[in-house]
Amino acid sequence: MIKVTVWNEGLHETLSTDVAAVYPKGIHNAIKDFLSSQPDITAGTATLKQKQCGLTQEVLDNTDVLIWWGHMAHNMVPDKVVNRVYERVLGGMGLIVLHSGHYSKIFKKLMGTTCNLNWREGDRERLWTVNPSHPIAQGVPAYINLDVEEMYGERFDIPEPDELVFLGWFAGGEVFRSGCCWQRGLGRVFYFQPGHESNPTYRNEDIQRIIINAVRWAAPQNPVQKDEGSPHVKQSPEEKYKAE
Amino acid sequence: MIKVTVWNEGLHETLSTDVAAVYPKGIHNAIKDFLSSQPDITAGTATLKQKQCGLTQEVLDNTDVLIWWGHMAHNMVPDKVVNRVYERVLGGMGLIVLHSGHYSKIFKKLMGTTCNLNWREGDRERLWTVNPSHPIAQGVPAYINLDVEEMYGERFDIPEPDELVFLGWFAGGEVFRSGCCWQRGLGRVFYFQPGHESNPTYRNEDIQRIIINAVRWAAPQNPVQKDEGSPHVKQSPEEKYKAE
Amino acid sequence: MIKVTVWNEGLHETLSTDVAAVYPKGIHNAIKDFLSSQPDITAGTATLKQKQCGLTQEVLDNTDVLIWWGHMAHNMVPDKVVNRVYERVLGGMGLIVLHSGHYSKIFKKLMGTTCNLNWREGDRERLWTVNPSHPIAQGVPAYINLDVEEMYGERFDIPEPDELVFLGWFAGGEVFRSGCCWQRGLGRVFYFQPGHESNPTYRNEDIQRIIINAVRWAAPQNPVQKDEGSPHVKQSPEEKYKAE
Amino acid sequence: MIKVTVWNEGLHETLSTDVAAVYPKGIHNAIKDFLSSQPDITAGTATLKQKQCGLTQEVLDNTDVLIWWGHMAHNMVPDKVVNRVYERVLGGMGLIVLHSGHYSKIFKKLMGTTCNLNWREGDRERLWTVNPSHPIAQGVPAYINLDVEEMYGERFDIPEPDELVFLGWFAGGEVFRSGCCWQRGLGRVFYFQPGHESNPTYRNEDIQRIIINAVRWAAPQNPVQKDEGSPHVKQSPEEKYKAE
Repeated sequence: MIKVTVWNEGLHETLSTDVAAVYPKGIHNAIKDFLSSQPDITAGTATLKQKQCGLTQEVLDNTDVLIWWGHMAHNMVPDKVVNRVYERVLGGMGLIVLHSGHYSKIFKKLMGTTCNLNWREGDRERLWTVNPSHPIAQGVPAYINLDVEEMYGERFDIPEPDELVFLGWFAGGEVFRSGCCWQRGLGRVFYFQPGHESNPTYRNEDIQRIIINAVRWAAPQNPVQKDEGSPHVKQSPEEKYKAE
Repeated sequence: MIKVTVWNEGLHETLSTDVAAVYPKGIHNAIKDFLSSQPDITAGTATLKQKQCGLTQEVLDNTDVLIWWGHMAHNMVPDKVVNRVYERVLGGMGLIVLHSGHYSKIFKKLMGTTCNLNWREGDRERLWTVNPSHPIAQGVPAYINLDVEEMYGERFDIPEPDELVFLGWFAGGEVFRSGCCWQRGLGRVFYFQPGHESNPTYRNEDIQRIIINAVRWAAPQNPVQKDEGSPHVKQSPEEKYKAE
Repeated sequence: MIKVTVWNEGLHETLSTDVAAVYPKGIHNAIKDFLSSQPDITAGTATLKQKQCGLTQEVLDNTDVLIWWGHMAHNMVPDKVVNRVYERVLGGMGLIVLHSGHYSKIFKKLMGTTCNLNWREGDRERLWTVNPSHPIAQGVPAYINLDVEEMYGERFDIPEPDELVFLGWFAGGEVFRSGCCWQRGLGRVFYFQPGHESNPTYRNEDIQRIIINAVRWAAPQNPVQKDEGSPHVKQSPEEKYKAE
Repeated sequence: MIKVTVWNEGLHETLSTDVAAVYPKGIHNAIKDFLSSQPDITAGTATLKQKQCGLTQEVLDNTDVLIWWGHMAHNMVPDKVVNRVYERVLGGMGLIVLHSGHYSKIFKKLMGTTCNLNWREGDRERLWTVNPSHPIAQGVPAYINLDVEEMYGERFDIPEPDELVFLGWFAGGEVFRSGCCWQRGLGRVFYFQPGHESNPTYRNEDIQRIIINAVRWAAPQNPVQKDEGSPHVKQSPEEKYKAE
């Protein structure tokens, strides 16, 4: 059973009736709901207003994959919480960063770059699969039409992805590396561009399938480890070998 | 001085008046001409109809960077010639493969994949720079409009590029990894998608700049080497070290 | 159930009593035996002396992962057979190339390089895990001692691996990229250096675990596909979208 | 002219007579001296005890490539200084991180990982070139013997390098990815393992050549840029195109 925690600021849905109309229970619960339909996944949620943003050590210790949606309140997440998530990712926990989470503290910290991009609301996107045999692309068609989606365009200031799975095409004329994989420490990180708060993207079945696939791909195969630092090897492997 | 040989089938220009109208002296000479305007580059040409396709050992031994344009006659290039080019690339010669050269024997041999893609003539392209600090992107704007260009679309069946420099957006709705770098052996390979035979793409100054940059990037820093096989190391480095 | 075919020349074991003493039933059967102990793997063998090297279209159509051990007779494998394997790998079949298979036709064809290296028999190796969270490294210790193994040393002329999993240390003073992953087309390729014919490497339980892991990693998630070429897209995605 | 600033804590040399015996003017001046012998390089130094660690905005604005040596006082470098360096690297300044600098704030911030490793003083190293045509390996032999060097061994917790140039072999039995390249933002980063404070490594001519090569490789080709954030594109490229 893969234990997922879906984090969301939970602000847009309470501040905007437009957003609330699309996601009445919030983006986090919309994602939780389709994940929970899977027999091998159990999902919970956490939001900004909870104590420690809902990401206590106990919650993280019980999370295999963390999904992150944030936009207007990146700086309200305390560094202490960000560092706790960071250490857990490096120890093996999977992390899926959605849409405007590109500017979250945790994503920038893992990437080591600005994560800048170009943007414009209310465009139309066609998402292309460029690596169809990747686990995250299983069952996903050659392309997906998204009638309304926020344009995120290049240049996207990220390290060269370990694997590029999806490319976005926008009617307004831009392109974007919309689905990218990296390894950081023992953990796997997937960034996925679609999912603007006022568009019903997370109700699209192909988008849901991608996120479900990404959960399975990012789930750790081993227990998540603590940082053990840089050990001093007093007896060299050669000394040890010859002593045996 | 970087010695460039521009290879072209040289068929379209003689068989089609439309193509001849765009490139009266052939694509090879159009490319040769703008390269020759550079103080550090000297360029020659070679075509299919010449003996050994104009790519004798002597010609290759005097080539630092080979540019390849081919389309309708890939299979007319003898394997012997292909193997000669292949060995030279692995020894350090740069190779720039243009447009329909994606299906050339030499490119497929270096990639180890089918190099399949989707295509449609007569589209409009916007070429985006995704790696602006790459040597091949020096002086190139954020994007280039190409009023008419053949659509090449994903999925492009290539190994994950070592470096992705340009992405193509097409008005018809597709995206493409249009500028990709790989290292093979001691040589550098750049694939660049724009350049359909009936479109004046190679007269676009930004496109010219990219190809000029690519020549400088792909030029070997050392003399090109012969294949030395897999040597049997009779005296180990440790034996040698202790003997000294 | 993952269907594995273990290919071996099957020559060393019949020509050398030393090798026969280590692998009385041949390397292929030694590998087949430990694979067959796994509940999710079923394994068969194929050798050079069989018709079409035992790799008929029918055999390949029933193979999810092909393991390749070859050394003295690389050139006796007909190109027709190599091409058949190549097309199947690009369509999604996994390929695990062992030890001296670095010089096989199929590996060189997929890499697009010489695959040259340095070598010396009768050294001692310590195999280090550099990517411990990689699926192929599951359950594998930080390092494995191999009392006798053939030294394969850098420079190994391969494309930069997509993922580097193991590094080899040799008592004689060399290092080697001993476990490397690449994707080619829809298929996954793993090269693994240990396994000289006169050393009992394939009876080492950690080595067996790595090969078992590699089989699971390389197994295709989808049915293996045929090469569909480069389709002409007559109706663009935009035309299609607007017509709907 | 490439403007280099060599940063060093400058502590070991004042606290240890052993280190002072090896580098009487400090590691920073030893490096500055051999760099200054090059006609295209001008070098200065900066140390921890200077105001703002010697890395004021003015100094950084006049630095093309920053070299970083630190060990015992990583945490004494203020975050404000680290952030200033970070922004400059993302804007295009080159960064060369030496030896124990693997644990510097700036390197960890750019990598997004712990940068943990194993270590043991007083070993012997053989540094292997695995990418001989890389600009950083120009004129460097197949391997370099270092009679005394600190062992840094795998697992090195770094993101998969964009390019792996050198591997380290240690007499005690370990291996290490000793020379690694990454791009971050518009800047190039090179990590190089040799250079323990009590060993005369930086007086080795081959090591000097590698660092000189790395300076040239890391030097920005364009003026270093400021962070411009994520611009809102009000007029889409398509609207702009059609308006023209």
